[in-house]
Amino acid sequence: MKITFEELRHFLEVQFPQGASYGTLQKLGDGWAEMKLNVDEEHLRPGGTVAGPAMMGLADVTMYAALLSRIGLVPLAVTTNLNINFLRKPVAHAPIWARATMLKVGRTMGVGEVFVYSEGVEEPVAHSTMTYSIPPEK
Amino acid sequence: MKITFEELRHFLEVQFPQGASYGTLQKLGDGWAEMKLNVDEEHLRPGGTVAGPAMMGLADVTMYAALLSRIGLVPLAVTTNLNINFLRKPVAHAPIWARATMLKVGRTMGVGEVFVYSEGVEEPVAHSTMTYSIPPEK
Amino acid sequence: MKITFEELRHFLEVQFPQGASYGTLQKLGDGWAEMKLNVDEEHLRPGGTVAGPAMMGLADVTMYAALLSRIGLVPLAVTTNLNINFLRKPVAHAPIWARATMLKVGRTMGVGEVFVYSEGVEEPVAHSTMTYSIPPEK
Amino acid sequence: MKITFEELRHFLEVQFPQGASYGTLQKLGDGWAEMKLNVDEEHLRPGGTVAGPAMMGLADVTMYAALLSRIGLVPLAVTTNLNINFLRKPVAHAPIWARATMLKVGRTMGVGEVFVYSEGVEEPVAHSTMTYSIPPEK
Repeated sequence: MKITFEELRHFLEVQFPQGASYGTLQKLGDGWAEMKLNVDEEHLRPGGTVAGPAMMGLADVTMYAALLSRIGLVPLAVTTNLNINFLRKPVAHAPIWARATMLKVGRTMGVGEVFVYSEGVEEPVAHSTMTYSIPPEK
Repeated sequence: MKITFEELRHFLEVQFPQGASYGTLQKLGDGWAEMKLNVDEEHLRPGGTVAGPAMMGLADVTMYAALLSRIGLVPLAVTTNLNINFLRKPVAHAPIWARATMLKVGRTMGVGEVFVYSEGVEEPVAHSTMTYSIPPEK
Repeated sequence: MKITFEELRHFLEVQFPQGASYGTLQKLGDGWAEMKLNVDEEHLRPGGTVAGPAMMGLADVTMYAALLSRIGLVPLAVTTNLNINFLRKPVAHAPIWARATMLKVGRTMGVGEVFVYSEGVEEPVAHSTMTYSIPPEK
Repeated sequence: MKITFEELRHFLEVQFPQGASYGTLQKLGDGWAEMKLNVDEEHLRPGGTVAGPAMMGLADVTMYAALLSRIGLVPLAVTTNLNINFLRKPVAHAPIWARATMLKVGRTMGVGEVFVYSEGVEEPVAHSTMTYSIPPEK
């Protein structure tokens, strides 16, 4: 692993001025990461459930964490494609978790998948795949 | 058109307790909608640019608006699939605009596409397609 | 499981007049399926590798098989969305395998994911997610 | 435009040993292309309609043509992501057409969208977006 859990957690806090509104890092391995989002009013939508964008934001940042575990602290790695299927209605006020796993990390591109869960529920609420573009080293 | 601009703008304000953080409705037609997001600190990401989730949130709500122009004020229409390609780096502090157009509105499902722009720039910064599930009428 | 391996293999042979050009069923479980495609000239593309459409066709039919394991022999279940990431160059003349797993099977819709492999190679060559629409029972 | 219609039509015929089974080039412009597939038995599926993989194959090759109009005859440009929404049932024995338009052509990557139609029907039967990876020049 190119970075430690503490290094990445600190990096994410510095880079994202929004603080914990995208979620916080919980676990980190070689090519995978887990993050958690404490759902509050700003994350809800009509129907009393978690808004899609809150799940997409959490999925996106969790994939970013999984990618950085492999390539180190590269701020300018950016998402180029994201696909997400919303599978089940999340529990309205329970935290949501995301677990991202890299499927490939190449020289210029990383692809991975993310499962999103409501805390305490076994079946996933969403599943996403993403491509990140990795900037060339100077 | 099943609803007026004013009805939808009011509906969105009531339904989304987050206020303007997903964007505000600018124009509405039969099967299409335009929304605008005033980008501030909460929407930025490393690299001094607009965060992907801010663009995804705007795209998602704009498609919701375009769909409701056809089916009326159905709060429980929900996104089931979203795919987005990020094409160019948005201007950091310029507002972003989204224009959504429905490709199909069936009885149980609506599919459409959204272009996202930085204000004042002709080339799109992102392009998204989405599927919404329409709940059965009672 | 709603059907047996033999029933499904026979059903696929009857329904697809193209015979084995999409692949043949190898294994079937509750909510999953494996199929294999013997790659020949018609499946190749510039660069001496397996064409994307051959992998997409195999992935699509394998997901169909996985879905039918749950809902029975429903010919009119149709794909509504397919997303695929091509991860690595397949071996040109080796067979390709697909393994599909359902993530959700609802009343009107099934969502699943498929990994595609070159025979004998551990890392996947492609990963796909799909939504199938399930027609209402008469 | 980097190539002529005749150059590309000849290139596609040489590169794809399958002949016209993916479709034939009809029109070519700067950043766009149109292709047509004469549907026969090999392209059908249960329900008496055009198989998804036939539409995906046509969409994929049409995007390849649109990309090559911008970058010239680069055989090793390959699809890295494809997303497709199937919107309506195609007419079973009518030809299908695809029109691809590039949304961005960068140095290493091209992104575009494709509409697929049944001949003589105005509403599209499918809509696809794709990313092509462009190999570095030697």
